[in-house]
Parts: sequence; C-alpha cells; structure tokens
Amino acid sequence: RYFHFCKLPGRVMGIRLLRFTSVVIIVLLLVAGALTALLPNIKDDKMPNLRREAKTQSQSALDSFTLIMQTYNRTDLLLKLLNHYQAIPHLHKVIVVWNNIGEKIPEEMWNSLGPHPVPVVFKVQTVNRMRNRLQNFPELETKAVLMMDDDTLVSAHDLAFAFSVWQQFPKHIVGFVPRKHISTPSGVYSYGSFELQNPGFGNGDQYSMVLIGAAFFHSGYLEDFQRQPEAVYALIDETQNCDDIAMNFLVAKNTGKPSGVFVKPVDIRNLEKDTNSGYSGMWHRAEHLLQRSYCVNKLVNIYDGMPLQYSNIMISQFGFPNYANHKNKM
Amino acid sequence: RYFHFCKLPGRVMGIRLLRFTSVVIIVLLLVAGALTALLPNIKDDKMPNLRREAKTQSQSALDSFTLIMQTYNRTDLLLKLLNHYQAIPHLHKVIVVWNNIGEKIPEEMWNSLGPHPVPVVFKVQTVNRMRNRLQNFPELETKAVLMMDDDTLVSAHDLAFAFSVWQQFPKHIVGFVPRKHISTPSGVYSYGSFELQNPGFGNGDQYSMVLIGAAFFHSGYLEDFQRQPEAVYALIDETQNCDDIAMNFLVAKNTGKPSGVFVKPVDIRNLEKDTNSGYSGMWHRAEHLLQRSYCVNKLVNIYDGMPLQYSNIMISQFGFPNYANHKNKM
Repeated sequence: RYFHFCKLPGRVMGIRLLRFTSVVIIVLLLVAGALTALLPNIKDDKMPNLRREAKTQSQSALDSFTLIMQTYNRTDLLLKLLNHYQAIPHLHKVIVVWNNIGEKIPEEMWNSLGPHPVPVVFKVQTVNRMRNRLQNFPELETKAVLMMDDDTLVSAHDLAFAFSVWQQFPKHIVGFVPRKHISTPSGVYSYGSFELQNPGFGNGDQYSMVLIGAAFFHSGYLEDFQRQPEAVYALIDETQNCDDIAMNFLVAKNTGKPSGVFVKPVDIRNLEKDTNSGYSGMWHRAEHLLQRSYCVNKLVNIYDGMPLQYSNIMISQFGFPNYANHKNKM
Repeated sequence: RYFHFCKLPGRVMGIRLLRFTSVVIIVLLLVAGALTALLPNIKDDKMPNLRREAKTQSQSALDSFTLIMQTYNRTDLLLKLLNHYQAIPHLHKVIVVWNNIGEKIPEEMWNSLGPHPVPVVFKVQTVNRMRNRLQNFPELETKAVLMMDDDTLVSAHDLAFAFSVWQQFPKHIVGFVPRKHISTPSGVYSYGSFELQNPGFGNGDQYSMVLIGAAFFHSGYLEDFQRQPEAVYALIDETQNCDDIAMNFLVAKNTGKPSGVFVKPVDIRNLEKDTNSGYSGMWHRAEHLLQRSYCVNKLVNIYDGMPLQYSNIMISQFGFPNYANHKNKM
C-alpha cells in the first residue's frame, strides 16, 4: 500500500502530483505572506515632525483642520478661493460664514459642481457682524482652525508648513500677518503700522499680534471667545473691526506669552482687485488704523492691563522653496 | 511763656526760623522721595521677550551665558576670537578648554592686556580629547552654555538673538549649524551631507541635529553627559569626533522631540584659513564624514534605538538686519 502510488498509471499519478504541487505552492505563499506581515516596520524614524499624509480618505480630527472663511459681498472671490482651498492637504471641512444677509447661499451651484473633496457648510447669518466668524460652530470637529479672509490667497505649501508649525505651538496663533502695538510715554497705545514705528528696543522690529485673517489657532479659543466681557462684543460691533485684536488679547492673557508665532509666507496674495463686486475690504476705510489704535486702548481698559507681548521670532521652512535657503558662506 | 518766642531779639528769631525752615525743607524732600518710589512702574509692557540688558555690572546667572571654547593648536585664532567674544551681550564668563598638552596657557599675556570685560578661565587638560569640552566645569555658574569651535566667528547680533531664542527653547540645542541623518532601506543610517541627500518626505529639507560647535544649550546637559554609557566615551575617544552627535542623541532622548532649533545666522565665518599654525580642523580628514555615519550607527546600538527626530523649522530675526525682511508683496 505504501508503494501503491508508484505503481499507478502515469495519468493518475500526474494529477495527484499536480494536486500535491498546488498544495505545496499555496502553503509556501501563505508562509511568505505571514513572514511579510511580521517584518519589522523600519520606517518609524523617517517620520518627520510634520504629520504623515492621511492614508485614508477621511482625515482624523487631530491631524486636520477646519477652514473658516467669512464672506461679504465678494462671492466671486469666495468661489475662486474655495476651489483653491478645498484641496489643501489636511483640510477636514470648510465653514463659510455667510454675511450676505437676505441673499441666498450658492448651494445649488455648489452641489451641481460636485463632488467636492471635503464638506463645505454655508452658515447663514442674520446680521452682518464682523464677529460672526468667531462663533463656536457645532460643525467644527477639529482641534485646529484655519481662518482666512475672503480675499486672501495663501499657497498650499505655506499652509501645509504653517499647520505643522501650529502643531508645535498649539496654544498660539500661527499665521502670516504680524502686527504690533506701540507704547508711548503718555501711556496711550498706538496700533503700530509696521516699519513706520518701532518699539524702540534692541535690534530690528517686534510684533505683538498675528492677525487671524490668515492664521491657524486652536478651536478652543472660539469657545473661550464666547465667555468674554460684553464690552468686547460691543466694541467689535461698534467698529465692525478689531475682532482679531481682541483674539490676540484673549490668547496673550491665556498663555502669558506672545500671542502669535509669525510664519513668513512664500506666496500670499490679496485678490481684492480681482472682484467684480466693486467692494473693497474694510481696511480701506479712512479711519481703519485709527480705529485699531482706539480698540487697543479700549481693550486695555476692559481687560485691566496690556497682555500683549512682543516677539521677534520669524519662522521659515528649512530648504524650501530654495533647497539651499539655509546655507551660509562659511 | 507761649509768646516768649515773639519777644526774642530779631537775630535769635532769625536763627530759629532758619532751623525751622531747614527742617521743613528736609521733611518735604523726604516726602517727595517717598512719593517717587511709590509711583507705578508703567514700563512693564515695553519689556520684550528678549531679556532686558543687565543694568548692573555683574550679569545674573539666569540672564547670561558661559562661553566654552575648546582650543588645540590655534592659539592665534583663539586670541582673536576671545577679543570678539569677550564683549558679547549677556556673556557671564569664558571657559577656555586648553587641549595644548604640555604647553603653557597664555595667562601672563592675557593678564598683561587686562582688564577684561568678563573672567576668562583657562582649563588645562592632561590628555588631548575631543570630549574635554563636555565636562561639568565647576566654574560654570549659568544655566546657559554657548559652545563655540575655536575657528568660528559669529556676529554679536546673531548671538544675542540666538540666546533670546534659547531662552524660549531651553531644553533644545539652539544653534547655527544644522545637520541630519538619513535612513536607508537596509536599516543602516548615514550622516546626511546636506542637500546631497534628502530624507525623502514632503517639501524641502529636514535637519535632525544642531552641532554644538556653534550653539546654546542648557548646562544641565553637561551634567547628564557625565552619566552616559561608557561606550559613548569610548566611541568619541576612538574617533576624536562625534561628541556633538552624541549630545544630540542625549538631548533627543531626553526631550522626545527634535534635539535642535536652527537659527539662521546672518554673519558666521570660519577663520581656519587665517591661522598661522598650519593646522586645519578635524573635519578636513578624509574619513571625517564616514566616521560620523559610523558614529550614528554605533550610537543607535548603544542607545538601542534612533532618538533623533526631524525638524524643518528655520528661525530668523524679525526685521533685522533688514527692517523689511518680513514684508510680502500682498
């Protein structure tokens, strides 16, 4: 019986040999597959401080951010910007704060041009208020918020890098537009318009605010903003301005440090001139800067002190866009 | 008796009036002095994140740093650099690690050319070891160490700024020379020689080390360095190299983050060519870079893992030297 196999006719033996060989091959493949799964993952140390690109289609709430963009009377710019921003890496969702009171949101058009990379929510407002964008939106799922003005274009590279910087400074406003306040001997503060004024100490310049119209910050600050003194809301409503200054006061008070971290943008553009609406931003009003100085002093009264602090840290991306941007002549 | 005073002769009354007036004036001066001392200090908000210049002649140990400079066979460069570095703002003391075995320190000459802005201590060594500079010197009183190679000149502006950055990142090596390691599929690491190699993820480049030959770090790390595995000392002694790589491993292990923060220098110079000694630095040896790759792999063995992490943060000073270096075309 043992050698029965050998005595079978050639054809039957061939089939049994084929079955046997197939089984052996399948077993070998299974073993190889198991070995592959057991191989150690040697890629861990390759992980940079930047979050790894999400491999799944949905972004985890920790590794992504929500874009909040308030819009008024510039729907053409809004739509142009939405096409750009909807595909930014690590974007989770877009919240459009619709300040065009009584005007229909472009939802039909938006849907007809779908599908879109991420959900876009249009939040219809009842009053055209500057501080509408600082609500604690229930749709907000991520720890990080990217807030952009509806006329500002920042490159995807800049945003990806700034997001990675925010992840290292989560309690700060990490953004592209630095500003400062100036102390004067009289004790009255002035909103410093850049190199036209200098805080007057050490080398170079300082900044004490990072504007939220092009910045990342922690969504928790939107929650905090709901718990501010009434006088803050009254001030912002009165001026239709200064919500960003108020946020910097809030953050500085909260951290006891400079509120912002400035990331120098490689490619940031103002698209104001491109709008067909004829509407140009609030900052063109004659009283705009004077209002902001006024706000600084009012906020110092409201908060009983000046919490803003100076910083001169300017962050750029190592080796990008110029791979040799860190070289020196040594 | 009450009116006795009025009846005295004019001359006596004059003297008493004079005494009375003097007393009144003195009392008024004292009151004025007391009031001045009680005036509120309204200068607090002017204080930038940079430490205020020390008003007293001696620098507080928290607001200043100790320069540690090891020297071998380049006393002419050492003396040139000492004249430059001895006057850097916030410098507390200089410790010169004298690796010229058997050669007398230039103490007489140094003293004859005094007085000097800060104390300079010459630490005579018995063996010419690269890691001599990593001793926990008893003369070290400050929290911060500035370590410089004896052929490297960095401007005072760069040093003042980098020191202020270190104060914001006290657990990191804050310096001017970034380097990196590269992972390879084989699992063998390579010491990355700049743009010749790329870690291969995202935009731009990354660094995972900041060399200690031009950097600030916490003096506590010198203490930590004394408690490393013997194999680390053996490696550094064997190669007369890699003490800086070892320090980066130590710091990365300690913080669980990238060990260094790179500050882009405006003015950094290598004075090697200027020496009359004919001696050029260790890094000219043919095997220098290969040794450093070797060290990376040995240290991974010793520490049982790769603790170094990548960063692409590059820090510059806002508004200096070009006051508009933060402007964008928006």
